[in-house]
Amino acid sequence: MEKEKLTIVKVGGKIVENENSLTQFLKKFQTINTYKLLVHGGGRSATELAKRMNLETKMINGRRITDAAMLEVVTMVYGGLVNKNIVAQLSALNLPALGLTGADMNVILSHKRPVGEIDYGYVGDIDKVDGERLSTLIKSHLIPVLAPLTYDGKGTLLNTNADTIASETAKSLAHFFDVTLIYCFELPGVMRDPNDKQTLIKEINRAKFSSLVTEGIISDGMIPKLENSLKATEAGVTQVIITCPDSLNKNEGTIIK
Amino acid sequence: MEKEKLTIVKVGGKIVENENSLTQFLKKFQTINTYKLLVHGGGRSATELAKRMNLETKMINGRRITDAAMLEVVTMVYGGLVNKNIVAQLSALNLPALGLTGADMNVILSHKRPVGEIDYGYVGDIDKVDGERLSTLIKSHLIPVLAPLTYDGKGTLLNTNADTIASETAKSLAHFFDVTLIYCFELPGVMRDPNDKQTLIKEINRAKFSSLVTEGIISDGMIPKLENSLKATEAGVTQVIITCPDSLNKNEGTIIK
Repeated sequence: MEKEKLTIVKVGGKIVENENSLTQFLKKFQTINTYKLLVHGGGRSATELAKRMNLETKMINGRRITDAAMLEVVTMVYGGLVNKNIVAQLSALNLPALGLTGADMNVILSHKRPVGEIDYGYVGDIDKVDGERLSTLIKSHLIPVLAPLTYDGKGTLLNTNADTIASETAKSLAHFFDVTLIYCFELPGVMRDPNDKQTLIKEINRAKFSSLVTEGIISDGMIPKLENSLKATEAGVTQVIITCPDSLNKNEGTIIK
Repeated sequence: MEKEKLTIVKVGGKIVENENSLTQFLKKFQTINTYKLLVHGGGRSATELAKRMNLETKMINGRRITDAAMLEVVTMVYGGLVNKNIVAQLSALNLPALGLTGADMNVILSHKRPVGEIDYGYVGDIDKVDGERLSTLIKSHLIPVLAPLTYDGKGTLLNTNADTIASETAKSLAHFFDVTLIYCFELPGVMRDPNDKQTLIKEINRAKFSSLVTEGIISDGMIPKLENSLKATEAGVTQVIITCPDSLNKNEGTIIK
């Protein structure tokens, strides 16, 4: 039997933390006419709350060092403020949303990242996404909204990269659906020159990825995002698209297969 | 067909905000061998966060005035920190918990309390609990964990009294289950003298309630709690019990029928 289509959208912190851009994004998200699941980042709003609480934010290589106090901050901001705000807005658009962390129904189990050269603190690396549970929710026409928090199975939440949650969730759900994973951010896709829309790279496969990294076109945070994307397609996800909210429903952007 | 048993427990802010008492409570909660649903308060942890953020907390008659900034605080604390902490701890006890606000799946709709003599701000009075949805979750062996936040159907969360959420949820679920509602707090029940356990009042009905209010034994915050309890039993809830964590599974405390 042919699998039904599911679109998983990961939306970044910058879009989420601005009320106008979030509203615009959600209206576009609404127009996707397949089954849907949303993963959101948190971004600077956690840094802002930490600042108001006189907590120092430490970042290494763009990753947040999450000590016990910062874990409380991200639990409040990602699991509470951002997640529930998105859920409330989706519900207002008649989309029955269900906000989740990895701890809810044990849906995403992870382990605390081992301390190597850097101690990231309460940061989780994913072991298992319960695709069957998510699939049941989705097929009952709910829209899971995943916060970037996973769970160690022993009572502790762990701060987890939203891009990784999106790709691991996509891989897990590929057993149940024909999955398209969309990374939605401010730009129309991967571009040779971020200031020139004409330089959008329309398709990337593993060979092209390697040469773009060598050329220096793809660098920094875009490398793990594309690595995740390629691995997702290799693990059964139909396609991954990197695009902006305006192109969400148009199959435009950078397509990774 | 006889209805299956469901126990709804409302646990107060004081038990929830202390790590030890919360752990002890959850272990007792685990021993309840019927279907289960948990409603939690938030209490002083929101006040503490507000203080750290230099926001002033205004209370009138024990009720929090919830302006826009305070709504963000309670969304973070009740919907994020407290709710997800409870969910994570329940999951660690092998109880598949699902944290919810009223906005999740539109499960509790409310309206912003009209401004009378007092403007409570973003405070919700409940219109409808979706008992059918909750019933489906419960019968699939999930344990809903309700934060004291409801939803206006138009994109805004509303701060809502947890006792009221518990009694409205109990009434709604009484169509589907044989419901016992337990208000769990620090004391063994309603007592003539709060310092003397021997003075526990074992049973209260409407007539006795009236005379206890006249006598001044029941006063302040206990009046609406008992009003809610009596109304719940009148609306089909089998029994309401007011008790402490130690007596959770013993049918001890003050029983309201």
